[in-house]
Amino acid sequence: MSVRRLTEDEIVTRLRELAEQSSGGRVLLGIGDDAAVWQPSRSHRSVITTDALVDGVHFTRETMSLEDVGWRTTTANLSDLAAMGARPVLATIALGIPEAVDFEDLLALYRGVIACARTERLVIAGGDLTRAPALTIAMTAVGEVRASSVKRRSSGRPGDAVGVTGTLGASRAGLDIARGRVTLSQEGLREEALRAHRRPRARVREGQWLAASANVHAMMDCSDGLSTDLARLCEASALGASLESIPVAPSALAAAEALREDPRAYALAGGEEYELIFTCAARAFAHLARRFQECFGSPLHRIGTLRRERGIVIAERGEEKPVSRTGWDHFDGG
Amino acid sequence: MSVRRLTEDEIVTRLRELAEQSSGGRVLLGIGDDAAVWQPSRSHRSVITTDALVDGVHFTRETMSLEDVGWRTTTANLSDLAAMGARPVLATIALGIPEAVDFEDLLALYRGVIACARTERLVIAGGDLTRAPALTIAMTAVGEVRASSVKRRSSGRPGDAVGVTGTLGASRAGLDIARGRVTLSQEGLREEALRAHRRPRARVREGQWLAASANVHAMMDCSDGLSTDLARLCEASALGASLESIPVAPSALAAAEALREDPRAYALAGGEEYELIFTCAARAFAHLARRFQECFGSPLHRIGTLRRERGIVIAERGEEKPVSRTGWDHFDGG
Repeated sequence: MSVRRLTEDEIVTRLRELAEQSSGGRVLLGIGDDAAVWQPSRSHRSVITTDALVDGVHFTRETMSLEDVGWRTTTANLSDLAAMGARPVLATIALGIPEAVDFEDLLALYRGVIACARTERLVIAGGDLTRAPALTIAMTAVGEVRASSVKRRSSGRPGDAVGVTGTLGASRAGLDIARGRVTLSQEGLREEALRAHRRPRARVREGQWLAASANVHAMMDCSDGLSTDLARLCEASALGASLESIPVAPSALAAAEALREDPRAYALAGGEEYELIFTCAARAFAHLARRFQECFGSPLHRIGTLRRERGIVIAERGEEKPVSRTGWDHFDGG
Repeated sequence: MSVRRLTEDEIVTRLRELAEQSSGGRVLLGIGDDAAVWQPSRSHRSVITTDALVDGVHFTRETMSLEDVGWRTTTANLSDLAAMGARPVLATIALGIPEAVDFEDLLALYRGVIACARTERLVIAGGDLTRAPALTIAMTAVGEVRASSVKRRSSGRPGDAVGVTGTLGASRAGLDIARGRVTLSQEGLREEALRAHRRPRARVREGQWLAASANVHAMMDCSDGLSTDLARLCEASALGASLESIPVAPSALAAAEALREDPRAYALAGGEEYELIFTCAARAFAHLARRFQECFGSPLHRIGTLRRERGIVIAERGEEKPVSRTGWDHFDGG
């Protein structure tokens, strides 16, 4: 069967079955979470994650510079560490380079990697260079976390409040602007969107902060879009969720309005965003959000509630409508 | 300037300069060695390495199966850990998959990865899947090593004996057989060569064993060919080397003879082999080789001596001839 006809999650499930034959239980948490966790010594947990970006698949040089590409690759990895509550330590980069690439462009890409890495004290520690038909950046990042702070995506509990660390949809609005699909007249919104697309920030300190709370049960990032990633969290926790509200970024609201699209759909299917989705004891949410606001100067958004009924629904005029996995899936046949 | 006009080492040097801006001295050993080393706790050293294989660059499906490709990718990473004297812990894999790839082929690749990983207790702990124009496997492996055992390629001393853990050239002979460039009539030699090409083994236990010896000073693997990699070790140690003998694999001897080529050149430029090159106190070599033979049932080969004069030479009829870096360099203009 061609991989074209399988979703990423279907492929991952099969590969995980194979990989588990190699483990003998020595890795605490493996394929399927944002990162794998292992135990270098009794008191320590190390976390590892890998993300690859390919020219023409994850970016085109028409909508972002190679410096942006380097930045975004780094953010994707930092975000996976953030979702585990880990402190970034180091990263390696395997670069696949087409013959036609200019060395200055390669340096620009590297500058973007390093500029982003420095914001979170991530050290670029090594790598591999090879020829490839398309520019490919595979980055692997390692972080460290206290054993008690590791948050899985499978630890959600029925009745948990579901929160996100910021508004959604700006990155997709930025992509639409860069592609010329939409024009925003307000300079501030335009910049918000393009920045979210080209220079997204991972919620690294926020992830560590949330992970330190015993009231937070499950956490992951929503880099493939809220609807896809929340569905993954729900499936891992053997639960469903009802959505109550979706915090849409102002630029995404404006873009959706200009395009006459549903702004919530815009935010649900966004992707390439690096907010964290988390679940916490419902009674603890308000207090957590107040302390988060004091610490980071931005709100936590409560978007819904975990429940035993599987699937994700959204309340609309008193009715529950199912939410499909319309987020970004590179292997989706559609 | 196009990357075509730069060698891999030239590119690495420039990227290393940039990367060092991100480090602040927190990584003990970074870009340029086989792997980066960091310190998760006072008594432990962790080691990380990454290697990417690209269809059409590092392999063609005409000469090996995807199961072989998976095996060889894993060996390349294990070998980098071996060169640091590290015990393998876990690996992540970023797979870039063209649309036309069959899912069964993908499983075959993964089976090769896992079969090789199991031989050395390496756990496949996670990864990333994405579309790509050519099948691409970027693997990152983590190992652990005692602080006192870390061997750098820069620690060679003048007068050190230079040794390798096995004979060389079989992998290139295997490639030539698979491509139909040469035919070997002896079945045993044919198999030795094809096995070296398709199912090479990393010297993992040998690396740990050598690293535990205080008499061993510098170590690296020779995956890019003896002449290239010994030159790298010499440059890192600010030394040169005189070669006295080169242990050529029987199948490489036979292939070189059939092709009327110099068997030593065949072994020097081989590449895609995973023997370890090491240097040790000259007076300790014989004892080390005897104990190695007892432990692993195979000899250590003394190939030459480190010396203050830079460059690598080979003794031939009482004269010293310079050895060029004819090994495998993916970025070489030639």
